Amino acid sequence: MVVIMKKKASEEDIEAVITNLNAFGFDVHRSSGINQTVLGAIGVRPGFDHRIIRGLSGVADVQRVTEPYKLASRVGREAPSIIDVDGLHIGGHAITVMAGLRSTESEERIKEAAKQISTSGASLFRGSILKPRTSFYEYQGLESDGFKVMRQAADECGLKLVMEVSSMGQVEPISEYASMLLVQAHNMQNFELLRVLGESNKPILLERGLAATVQEWLMAAEYIMRSGNTGVILCERGIRTFESATRYTVDLSAVAVAKVKSHLPVFVDPCQGTGMRDYVTSLACAAVAAGADGIAVDVHHDPPRASSNGLQAFNFNQFVDLIVQVRKVANAVGRSLHQ
Amino acid sequence: MVVIMKKKASEEDIEAVITNLNAFGFDVHRSSGINQTVLGAIGVRPGFDHRIIRGLSGVADVQRVTEPYKLASRVGREAPSIIDVDGLHIGGHAITVMAGLRSTESEERIKEAAKQISTSGASLFRGSILKPRTSFYEYQGLESDGFKVMRQAADECGLKLVMEVSSMGQVEPISEYASMLLVQAHNMQNFELLRVLGESNKPILLERGLAATVQEWLMAAEYIMRSGNTGVILCERGIRTFESATRYTVDLSAVAVAKVKSHLPVFVDPCQGTGMRDYVTSLACAAVAAGADGIAVDVHHDPPRASSNGLQAFNFNQFVDLIVQVRKVANAVGRSLHQ
Amino acid sequence: MVVIMKKKASEEDIEAVITNLNAFGFDVHRSSGINQTVLGAIGVRPGFDHRIIRGLSGVADVQRVTEPYKLASRVGREAPSIIDVDGLHIGGHAITVMAGLRSTESEERIKEAAKQISTSGASLFRGSILKPRTSFYEYQGLESDGFKVMRQAADECGLKLVMEVSSMGQVEPISEYASMLLVQAHNMQNFELLRVLGESNKPILLERGLAATVQEWLMAAEYIMRSGNTGVILCERGIRTFESATRYTVDLSAVAVAKVKSHLPVFVDPCQGTGMRDYVTSLACAAVAAGADGIAVDVHHDPPRASSNGLQAFNFNQFVDLIVQVRKVANAVGRSLHQ
Amino acid sequence: MVVIMKKKASEEDIEAVITNLNAFGFDVHRSSGINQTVLGAIGVRPGFDHRIIRGLSGVADVQRVTEPYKLASRVGREAPSIIDVDGLHIGGHAITVMAGLRSTESEERIKEAAKQISTSGASLFRGSILKPRTSFYEYQGLESDGFKVMRQAADECGLKLVMEVSSMGQVEPISEYASMLLVQAHNMQNFELLRVLGESNKPILLERGLAATVQEWLMAAEYIMRSGNTGVILCERGIRTFESATRYTVDLSAVAVAKVKSHLPVFVDPCQGTGMRDYVTSLACAAVAAGADGIAVDVHHDPPRASSNGLQAFNFNQFVDLIVQVRKVANAVGRSLHQ
Repeated sequence: MVVIMKKKASEEDIEAVITNLNAFGFDVHRSSGINQTVLGAIGVRPGFDHRIIRGLSGVADVQRVTEPYKLASRVGREAPSIIDVDGLHIGGHAITVMAGLRSTESEERIKEAAKQISTSGASLFRGSILKPRTSFYEYQGLESDGFKVMRQAADECGLKLVMEVSSMGQVEPISEYASMLLVQAHNMQNFELLRVLGESNKPILLERGLAATVQEWLMAAEYIMRSGNTGVILCERGIRTFESATRYTVDLSAVAVAKVKSHLPVFVDPCQGTGMRDYVTSLACAAVAAGADGIAVDVHHDPPRASSNGLQAFNFNQFVDLIVQVRKVANAVGRSLHQ
Repeated sequence: MVVIMKKKASEEDIEAVITNLNAFGFDVHRSSGINQTVLGAIGVRPGFDHRIIRGLSGVADVQRVTEPYKLASRVGREAPSIIDVDGLHIGGHAITVMAGLRSTESEERIKEAAKQISTSGASLFRGSILKPRTSFYEYQGLESDGFKVMRQAADECGLKLVMEVSSMGQVEPISEYASMLLVQAHNMQNFELLRVLGESNKPILLERGLAATVQEWLMAAEYIMRSGNTGVILCERGIRTFESATRYTVDLSAVAVAKVKSHLPVFVDPCQGTGMRDYVTSLACAAVAAGADGIAVDVHHDPPRASSNGLQAFNFNQFVDLIVQVRKVANAVGRSLHQ
Repeated sequence: MVVIMKKKASEEDIEAVITNLNAFGFDVHRSSGINQTVLGAIGVRPGFDHRIIRGLSGVADVQRVTEPYKLASRVGREAPSIIDVDGLHIGGHAITVMAGLRSTESEERIKEAAKQISTSGASLFRGSILKPRTSFYEYQGLESDGFKVMRQAADECGLKLVMEVSSMGQVEPISEYASMLLVQAHNMQNFELLRVLGESNKPILLERGLAATVQEWLMAAEYIMRSGNTGVILCERGIRTFESATRYTVDLSAVAVAKVKSHLPVFVDPCQGTGMRDYVTSLACAAVAAGADGIAVDVHHDPPRASSNGLQAFNFNQFVDLIVQVRKVANAVGRSLHQ
Repeated sequence: MVVIMKKKASEEDIEAVITNLNAFGFDVHRSSGINQTVLGAIGVRPGFDHRIIRGLSGVADVQRVTEPYKLASRVGREAPSIIDVDGLHIGGHAITVMAGLRSTESEERIKEAAKQISTSGASLFRGSILKPRTSFYEYQGLESDGFKVMRQAADECGLKLVMEVSSMGQVEPISEYASMLLVQAHNMQNFELLRVLGESNKPILLERGLAATVQEWLMAAEYIMRSGNTGVILCERGIRTFESATRYTVDLSAVAVAKVKSHLPVFVDPCQGTGMRDYVTSLACAAVAAGADGIAVDVHHDPPRASSNGLQAFNFNQFVDLIVQVRKVANAVGRSLHQ
């Protein structure tokens, strides 16, 4: 931490800052120039809120030298993490494809979807039972025995089931069925939920918030890991920008940054990110080329008739084509596809 | 709703769309030009998801004519809403000031703060008992008998207590003490929470999400109102943009827009929005000039020593000065300050 | 400037950085901790590109301590600048109103507009002769004897004429007629143009770019000032964000920030910023409450029939009402309106 | 164009709008429901400013059905454009690599760079003679006989020379040497410049503005094409968002969108977009996977010592590695690399 004193800071101000830093356990080095003094506070105190120093009299600015996360950081942990999802290894040489439905369908449709996507090359099956929406008036999936049906469909096809959790109370019941729990973007900073997930033994797929920086995303991962659950996979699904040609702006630089800054695996969800099927294959291939460890795709037996988000979903034939393209790019960057 | 057909749409496509719209209860008017057909679907179906039509064969685009919210809309309800918070009327002629602490303090400090701010002109006292933070390592307020202390302090000074709720389970216990419940920005789309709040009889202060459009903010209000609780007050507290000179960008246009589109009262929180005390008075005055019905300010007996967000808090003397300025602007726009 | 060395930086790396800094005239103070070394480079070298140091071996990060601008900075120059526009003093106690047309009108209409706005309380008349547009197909004003007409109209009503310049070649001819030159947002980083303006003796009204930070805006001002022209007035007119309810997002925090960081006067253009007449009066009042030294408003004798931007323009009666509101707020913040 | 009337619009209002639309040559179809009337205006008038209708009495909203650009649109022109740059074909099967220097170097260094990059697989050589910067105090390249040297270096290595133009006056002199002219992001809406480029016979590489939507980018291309020069190549180089881990946010969705909406070739510049060498190879591969027709890379014989933007430049060995990676991905998506 570097503390920059104001030009007008008095000697008392400077000494008070040094005393404070020492009290918090930092070793302080002082650099005084003609106009200004700079203090270097050496020491690692991950829990330290630098704003305490920022508010002291005579302080112009405080700048962090190290990232505010530690467990999620690649510093001191060079090898990428491999997360075990009921036997499926995510983050290694093989790239993972997750596919799933965005709305509740009949048991038959669920089984058909599981069969089709497992045949095509997906390893993860994303289910969606209860779907609160931005508008009360829009379609909402119904909670049901759907849990069992989804799990059964996944099991029969050798897929691992991934299910969304959106409140603390859902973690336990859904964990009975799901192999991995998905935290949606709007819950990325729902800290009560993150804390409960930190105590879970299920891997967590953590979507980046629409307005979250990569640093905040890694901090949310840290939050989960700090409570004991180190099985975190990141998922980029678009950030909010001024561009309106796509629903959100898929930020593939964030994949490159996250892979450099963190050892955690990174997924990309181009369906949610673009909101338009026409752009999904391009972005899925780009994500893999950028270094993603997995991609997430929406499928539907008849997208134009899907009750929710049909515009961004693929039918099964389109999904097969997507997988073919993605596999070629995976091979080009020296990786493979699961299965 | 206007349905724009593709140039290549077949007659069958067009007829299928019309049949669908009729089935949903819309009256359809067809306009066929040489190149393209446009269908006007007349009728109000607030619960209708227009994406169902968007996905049909031959459809180029679907555009909403009416806003997707209804209860929060000013259409058909010209008079601004006045929300009753335990006898305090918010949204009328008088502008409301809410002040509070961002971190847990001793009973003595809490009582001192309540006394000081009530003397200065605030009517609402915001308490903060449990404060989950973006980083596990940063300061977190501790849950405690604090509830009682805060309520008592508020009561003794004639203030109404406003408390944050960040999960469903907190709604009931906190409602025992608080006169109004605050939903923070990162929970604006926590629909489970919104649903429970919709069944509450407490007024709700709903912060705008960092990446939420005004429309989405009003949709979140609608979500609460739809469950029966019409006592919603909006709170602008900054959106995320590329500008880094302030913590967020306070969007005062959003106040003007929300006041035109909705009958709900609107607050502005310039402390959180700017993150810097130096800019707060300017923004508080600007908010009132823009039409805000209330402002929220952080106070602390000694901001540089606050354990959390001290940079944006006011000491009591500064708070008095702020109130003096805000009152002058309130009078200039034909309003007064509560008390 | 603070140079943070990597944890793995060798002693040679550190010494090479120190040698480099010394060569550029900096006094260097070294702070070595157990894990990491931090170098404080003391000295003011406004022309120094810190990226030269950033690229040296072993350097983790370089952080600026002082702002990169100097002439535009308030540091060492506490009093706000007052800019003389042909005898009109901008930036002092009185707030200035600029009003004008967005499109070419007949001589009669121009004279009518000048008369109406001067009677209502404006001091600056913005003319618009040549108007290149984002689309070739949209309306473009025609160059003409319009220059003379506008100047004559301004003179007859005691207004100062402000005209846009959008290329180097326009600076000289337009300077013959205009009292102040306006740089539009999309030219804020047109450095060839800025350089020519820096050699001009006309005051410059510098709009903030749609994607420009406050720092970059002040850097553009610095660019002009550095060439000798210190008569710069800043103009906030909205930044680009995800919000689409308004055309752009008027950033009134930027006014507060610019007033703290710089001694230059700041205007706000709520018409361009919101793009909607309904929101302009609220934002104009808010701008003045936030500390703006002037506001810019579009007028038209019949806005619905304006060939360009009619949606955001005021008719003359509406303009009178706006002025009345703005004057009240100006008085509330201890200022007056010109005239 | 669809005109949505207000609920309270009178019959006179509606008729006035219809009369107006007819006068502009539109065929109008009226759909009247119980609450609201919608008018469909059929006809293609690319030069029509829909705001004229938007401002008429009783009009609630006007929505465009067709894109506002025509020559740049893929509608009616399915095949992608292939642009001839002095014999080099851009936009076809082969992907083009442009490499170049960001700052002025000695004749020897320029020739070395040309040789190295042509050997590695680049076909375009970007020169930079005069470099105005955001700060007057930062490094600026010096104009010189550099033109000749760059052209000679390019010719000797079989490269085509690409040079930046930043004002109208530069177009003619630079055209004597360059095979393609580059418009930087901050000039994307410098319409005077675009008009002159429209009259040029040189292909134009048009960078997307930092705050420009894809639609505005295509409109800028249209602006050039409308003046007669159809040789336009688009270049995505990052947009401004809240994310600060990278300099800008490279928007690869924009590549997918531009390829669907337009027939023009699209380049991506990952060096400028990320500002950090560490992320460039990932993004370059991702760009090609997303469908880009070319990529632009900064090189330098010794990046840490580059006077400008050294952080994002590649040395020649790194450049060779990049090309190897990019070629593999190009092959995976069924394309090749030039040479």
